[in-house]
Amino acid sequence: MNFSSDTAAPAHPKVIEAIAAVNQGHQPSYGSDEVTARLRNLLRETFETDDFDFWICASGTASNSLALSVLCSSIGAIACHEEAHIERDERGAPEFFSGGAKLRLLPGQGGQIDEPALRQALDANNPGFVHETPLEALSLTNLTECGTAYPVARIEQYVSLAKAEGLNVHLDGARLANALISTGASPAEMSWKAGVDVLTLGLTKTGAIGCEIILLFGKARAAFSALQARAKRSGHMPPKMRFLAAQAEAMLTDGLWLSLAAKANQSAAELADLLCEKPGASLAYPTEGNEVFCVLPAAIEALVKKAGVKCYPWPGGSYRFVCSWATPASDLQAVRDLLAEA
Amino acid sequence: MNFSSDTAAPAHPKVIEAIAAVNQGHQPSYGSDEVTARLRNLLRETFETDDFDFWICASGTASNSLALSVLCSSIGAIACHEEAHIERDERGAPEFFSGGAKLRLLPGQGGQIDEPALRQALDANNPGFVHETPLEALSLTNLTECGTAYPVARIEQYVSLAKAEGLNVHLDGARLANALISTGASPAEMSWKAGVDVLTLGLTKTGAIGCEIILLFGKARAAFSALQARAKRSGHMPPKMRFLAAQAEAMLTDGLWLSLAAKANQSAAELADLLCEKPGASLAYPTEGNEVFCVLPAAIEALVKKAGVKCYPWPGGSYRFVCSWATPASDLQAVRDLLAEA
Amino acid sequence: MNFSSDTAAPAHPKVIEAIAAVNQGHQPSYGSDEVTARLRNLLRETFETDDFDFWICASGTASNSLALSVLCSSIGAIACHEEAHIERDERGAPEFFSGGAKLRLLPGQGGQIDEPALRQALDANNPGFVHETPLEALSLTNLTECGTAYPVARIEQYVSLAKAEGLNVHLDGARLANALISTGASPAEMSWKAGVDVLTLGLTKTGAIGCEIILLFGKARAAFSALQARAKRSGHMPPKMRFLAAQAEAMLTDGLWLSLAAKANQSAAELADLLCEKPGASLAYPTEGNEVFCVLPAAIEALVKKAGVKCYPWPGGSYRFVCSWATPASDLQAVRDLLAEA
Amino acid sequence: MNFSSDTAAPAHPKVIEAIAAVNQGHQPSYGSDEVTARLRNLLRETFETDDFDFWICASGTASNSLALSVLCSSIGAIACHEEAHIERDERGAPEFFSGGAKLRLLPGQGGQIDEPALRQALDANNPGFVHETPLEALSLTNLTECGTAYPVARIEQYVSLAKAEGLNVHLDGARLANALISTGASPAEMSWKAGVDVLTLGLTKTGAIGCEIILLFGKARAAFSALQARAKRSGHMPPKMRFLAAQAEAMLTDGLWLSLAAKANQSAAELADLLCEKPGASLAYPTEGNEVFCVLPAAIEALVKKAGVKCYPWPGGSYRFVCSWATPASDLQAVRDLLAEA
Repeated sequence: MNFSSDTAAPAHPKVIEAIAAVNQGHQPSYGSDEVTARLRNLLRETFETDDFDFWICASGTASNSLALSVLCSSIGAIACHEEAHIERDERGAPEFFSGGAKLRLLPGQGGQIDEPALRQALDANNPGFVHETPLEALSLTNLTECGTAYPVARIEQYVSLAKAEGLNVHLDGARLANALISTGASPAEMSWKAGVDVLTLGLTKTGAIGCEIILLFGKARAAFSALQARAKRSGHMPPKMRFLAAQAEAMLTDGLWLSLAAKANQSAAELADLLCEKPGASLAYPTEGNEVFCVLPAAIEALVKKAGVKCYPWPGGSYRFVCSWATPASDLQAVRDLLAEA
Repeated sequence: MNFSSDTAAPAHPKVIEAIAAVNQGHQPSYGSDEVTARLRNLLRETFETDDFDFWICASGTASNSLALSVLCSSIGAIACHEEAHIERDERGAPEFFSGGAKLRLLPGQGGQIDEPALRQALDANNPGFVHETPLEALSLTNLTECGTAYPVARIEQYVSLAKAEGLNVHLDGARLANALISTGASPAEMSWKAGVDVLTLGLTKTGAIGCEIILLFGKARAAFSALQARAKRSGHMPPKMRFLAAQAEAMLTDGLWLSLAAKANQSAAELADLLCEKPGASLAYPTEGNEVFCVLPAAIEALVKKAGVKCYPWPGGSYRFVCSWATPASDLQAVRDLLAEA
Repeated sequence: MNFSSDTAAPAHPKVIEAIAAVNQGHQPSYGSDEVTARLRNLLRETFETDDFDFWICASGTASNSLALSVLCSSIGAIACHEEAHIERDERGAPEFFSGGAKLRLLPGQGGQIDEPALRQALDANNPGFVHETPLEALSLTNLTECGTAYPVARIEQYVSLAKAEGLNVHLDGARLANALISTGASPAEMSWKAGVDVLTLGLTKTGAIGCEIILLFGKARAAFSALQARAKRSGHMPPKMRFLAAQAEAMLTDGLWLSLAAKANQSAAELADLLCEKPGASLAYPTEGNEVFCVLPAAIEALVKKAGVKCYPWPGGSYRFVCSWATPASDLQAVRDLLAEA
Repeated sequence: MNFSSDTAAPAHPKVIEAIAAVNQGHQPSYGSDEVTARLRNLLRETFETDDFDFWICASGTASNSLALSVLCSSIGAIACHEEAHIERDERGAPEFFSGGAKLRLLPGQGGQIDEPALRQALDANNPGFVHETPLEALSLTNLTECGTAYPVARIEQYVSLAKAEGLNVHLDGARLANALISTGASPAEMSWKAGVDVLTLGLTKTGAIGCEIILLFGKARAAFSALQARAKRSGHMPPKMRFLAAQAEAMLTDGLWLSLAAKANQSAAELADLLCEKPGASLAYPTEGNEVFCVLPAAIEALVKKAGVKCYPWPGGSYRFVCSWATPASDLQAVRDLLAEA
């Protein structure tokens, strides 16, 4: 019963197969290989556009910060949720990659930025006031850190508000597939069609070994060569790029990434139902992806601990249970059996 | 006939097998997995000491800069060869990771720092003179960028000179295995026994997909938690660390890395002999690893280009030919046949 | 009626005289001059200790950030009030000087950090958790941004809490003199005796042209050479240092700085009384220094605007009126006359 | 006999008078004062153009680095002479302010960049090669660190070469006045008319307390708001700006800066003649400003030391003697008397 994190799961076998398959002969280094070339086609189909550039990166933290470093200067600020991964879990990476930009933290329920708080921050923004660091970018996260999903309409609205004040928009999609499944939106609708400038599309948590894709859409493409230079100097331009590209290819081919996310979401939904059947148990946030945040009654909590169920205590008093493509049905059954004891 | 780079070669099959083999079940993230734990034992045997800490990193550029960032502060300077990879090929990574440290460039034949130049730089070093950035670290490279190998005695001497002035010492071992084979030194002799504080041990060019190990020896271990924090914030703390550890394990088990380097060196030696048989051809630097730097007479140069032999024009007028574990005998034969035409 | 800021005031005539007086003959550059040497004695008397090092700096922003950059590493965080000058008014200077450190913002009434909020932040601090940036320093401000004064006992308590968690403590004393007058504390009591590691003692707002002194006490002195190096590379090591030292000397001699602050505080107290006499007017924060934050009834607000009284609208709905050593009695009389019209 | 540095000299009395004169009443902070407004007119006349923006800064180091930080990104490089002040004497300030840019060092006699070396560096520049940091700016210094003056034609030529490769051009004019006097060029001819994008015009060494002006010409003006923001966050936006502006006003009024430089140059010329009269004495570099670099025969060297003449041993074996506006005729006479003893 391991619900500690989707990064504790193994990679999907097709990812391993893809790596083995591309390990043939010599290939040019640094992204000039055939596999990376093929990936562009796959991304074009996936996102229904040719107006993009992309960079593959093994790290989600680096992907977010590389993206932000071309959307916000070293003398600007980035608005984000106060519980965003870029604030809480990346050890100052945005400050480091940007050369000292600030994060402006906004509140909001369930990991989603509160609309009035966003409006207030945007209204107060005054790039002409030299003493204060002005907002230059908005960073949204979908699926959010609390497992909820922004609907496309909310993304569109926030992008629109931000752009009216001259901000660039970044979408942290470490669990984008889960949000797409949950909302029914297409990758295009959730990104460039909603006005997102740069998307970091995570595939690691979905089932790859370590593979994220930074996508620059439309005008943001002007920053592509700067992005590459920043990737190079931060050690995110692997010579044997084909092995990253192979992971991405395996995940995007025939929508594997979406199938895996659907399975993970389904497991989470089942788990949420199981937990909530117990009197006194309640969800801290709605389960709109592959994560369940549940407040447990004391008896259940004790049972869970005794049985060694791996989950993560969350600020606010709930527990986080993360499902993945690899969550076995037997784990859900084991939880069912466990709860039956109570 | 692809001699463009050892990073254009595929990974060794055992590396792929190892990745597949560890793809079983859940494992804790961020280096707390079993595979990483096993790797420590292997490193202890390989380096004949237990007085070390290590971090695995997919990138050579990041490994060097992470190492340097704990050996030199943002207000210090790093002495290195003027053709060092950290100066020429890493897009300012040391400056970025260190927060603005300077590189002090020293001359020398064949990629090796000239002893008088090193002595002069050390003599002139005056940490008490606040206007000038003082040297805090020396970075050596073995195998050097020109394919030559420092013998252990030279490393020991330079380390000794540097330490007498209070500097820390880094060894960039992107092609360490090739230098070990060439000099007959052991990993321990070439690193901590010679006084090296931090070694970046490269396995990518030797045969991995992307895998370098940063080793902190002795007193440098005090910087390990800072190294981890810096790895985290630069996106070099992969959640699914087991896949990096598996690569390292495959390479170090039964000395595979050394066998592969020996094969690459042997191919380079053969290629050097072949090329030098031609009148007018001469080595720019002695072939002491897996790289051949050869000045070609015009007729041979034309032939090589016509045949599409992949090699790299080098500053100074020579061509660089890189062999790897995967250089096929047929490629050497093809060169032999090609030269026979001349 | 100019209450816009104490930095809009002229310098005290003695400061100008001192500058003229030291403009004789050649003096060694960069702080090796006689005037700077004399200043050390004056600081020793003022702070009743010899266990300190100091640096003079024309800028308050730089002084704060230089101080913080030797108390918090680039991978650490600084706890401060959410309205602190270092967060609101220094355009990301702490992030810049530190190389990417984060500010952790704490709430609290009247510009003073709330005790429970501080305790919670300290309790949650976990330097061993590599994903999150740990607190390494606490920065307090006295006089606070809201014109209130922390009593010494509160400073002592907060320092004690911070040190128990291994944090260093910085005190931003841009208006320290005003807080000393208000609380009756001595410079020693408000700084090193309370456990403060580094104080930035502001004299600019008190009456100098541009002169702040960074004082490192006790163990913090170990960072003095790093502080100098950082001052040098940020352009805060003026060659003709004697002119900065002369300002400081003039201000500290015979307690001029305290007399000037007392006069400024007195003017503010009178102004506060005047304003509060009007029905509907009330102080947003108690007047404990040279700043009055007053909520004005609409009629008074209109009158004040019409008369061109210079003051500053403050977040929360009040107006900030700042007095200085140079606030003329005639300005206070003019306000009195103005209010009499209402 | 103090020839240690022009920064050891006092400020010109008119500078002190100007400071005293502007110390009247309240003035808006941060450069919105009347004195700064008047300075713009003076600069327009001095540089014969209205197509400029400017910022006043107390520090030469900061002025250079602020200028460079808007001409070169954090992922670019700056070409400069290997003995340039920005490389040798500013403790890594350009790397710090730019966020990690590199300096590319070029050789050349007498502190002047060698033309072939410049051409070679520009030819080799390849912004499309992501691994190497491309040149984005050229920084020239006039008067050079070796006391020689680039003629305007040479500045024009170098600017032209640099611009053909897309570089921006900075001129470090810490001793610009001395170079103007020496070459007979006008301020306009030596700066924007020659194609210089950003000039740092030094007045400190010429006779101010601490006052440099950063001038952005033509297209470079687009970077003015970024320059201000960077000045703010580095502590170079003094609230009481009027006192910096007053220094500049005093120096530029009626060409005082040029008169003072002319006097300093004249003293240096006399000193050079005096020294060179002695057999065995010879100039290391031609005296084209206010600095004399002279190789002294042993007997003279001993005499100079015994007499306590303040001068500075220079790399290469010469001594540097710096004259200023304040070099008394009696000091030159004292040298004459001293040499007569030999």
